[in-house]
Amino acid sequence: MIREKGILIVISGFSGAGKGTLVKKMLRTYDNYALSISMTTRQPREGERDGVEYFFTDKEQFEENIGRDGFIEYACYCGNYYGTPKAYVEEQLEAGKDVILEIEIQGALKVKEKFPESLLLFVTPPSAEELQRRLVGRGTETPEVIAKRLARASEESEGIEAYDYIVVNDDLDVCVAELHAIVDAARRAPVRREQFIKEIREELKGFAKGAE
Amino acid sequence: MIREKGILIVISGFSGAGKGTLVKKMLRTYDNYALSISMTTRQPREGERDGVEYFFTDKEQFEENIGRDGFIEYACYCGNYYGTPKAYVEEQLEAGKDVILEIEIQGALKVKEKFPESLLLFVTPPSAEELQRRLVGRGTETPEVIAKRLARASEESEGIEAYDYIVVNDDLDVCVAELHAIVDAARRAPVRREQFIKEIREELKGFAKGAE
Repeated sequence: MIREKGILIVISGFSGAGKGTLVKKMLRTYDNYALSISMTTRQPREGERDGVEYFFTDKEQFEENIGRDGFIEYACYCGNYYGTPKAYVEEQLEAGKDVILEIEIQGALKVKEKFPESLLLFVTPPSAEELQRRLVGRGTETPEVIAKRLARASEESEGIEAYDYIVVNDDLDVCVAELHAIVDAARRAPVRREQFIKEIREELKGFAKGAE
Repeated sequence: MIREKGILIVISGFSGAGKGTLVKKMLRTYDNYALSISMTTRQPREGERDGVEYFFTDKEQFEENIGRDGFIEYACYCGNYYGTPKAYVEEQLEAGKDVILEIEIQGALKVKEKFPESLLLFVTPPSAEELQRRLVGRGTETPEVIAKRLARASEESEGIEAYDYIVVNDDLDVCVAELHAIVDAARRAPVRREQFIKEIREELKGFAKGAE
């Protein structure tokens, strides 16, 4: 089998769906993944390290990077920029790595527009009730925050059809295996096998001519 | 997880790709599949049994069935009708079985048009060279037949992009496992999780309202 480029994987999901834990486990379990690290102009929080949680930069540099078309997608929240630097992602894809972006729906849709061959995965708890239970169960959030999160989840649920697959996170290990199987299946979609199709098509044409 | 309807699976592939053997093995290995049996007006060949290889019928009955919209797809080759009866397929899908149709590209495209949620799989040998080798290697075909098959494969290769997945049949067991994994992944596409999406959306809306 011809080694083709890696797959650009976008993982989104409701707050409380366990995306972060899933992604960490995928990176630890399999060696075909690379994680894209976002760039931001916001201040690092306690314990955050440059190049680990985020690449921290200033507004001037970020805007210069926008000007150079250096982001796959970017957005501005609460006065701070957040973006996915293009160079690292493209390098890793060329090297055959499947690159994971953990971003939300607006960013995901922008990625799909720019890279139609990207794979959009949406992670959800088994039910809305379970999502509510997880948000309340943390015990760390005020009722206002929980209400906000539920309202946001309700909004996000309107966009689910834009994703290629919806994966239920009930058991962490099962869900990681499912995500991995989906990525593996996606490798066989025509959009990701262009080279193979082109070659077999040309060869067949040659043979058919030769056999006439 | 909510038990949704089964998946309508179309398997096509080059002559010599080993479709028949793959399908038999899938049916033997896993219990989620049902095989759709075509109906035809052609005469049974030596050893063919009604309801096993085909349902054999006459022209009048076949055309009556067309009139009742009783086929998922049908076509006429060499003066004989061939078609996929709708009733059995729909019954099995409703019962949660994944129904396999082993048909060729024209039929596959008609199925996709009528059932956009169907899953189109194309099976291919690892290379055109291997396909030629298999056709020649059988030793049972005249050069003319081999030439015709290669010309036909070349034509068929033009339609590959219409399929959802392209699966290489190099090792039978590996290929069967891959096909099964693809079907399993496909269960998580939004088009096949409409019920789940609808329910979680409505529940979330309710919670968001309640938390306001």
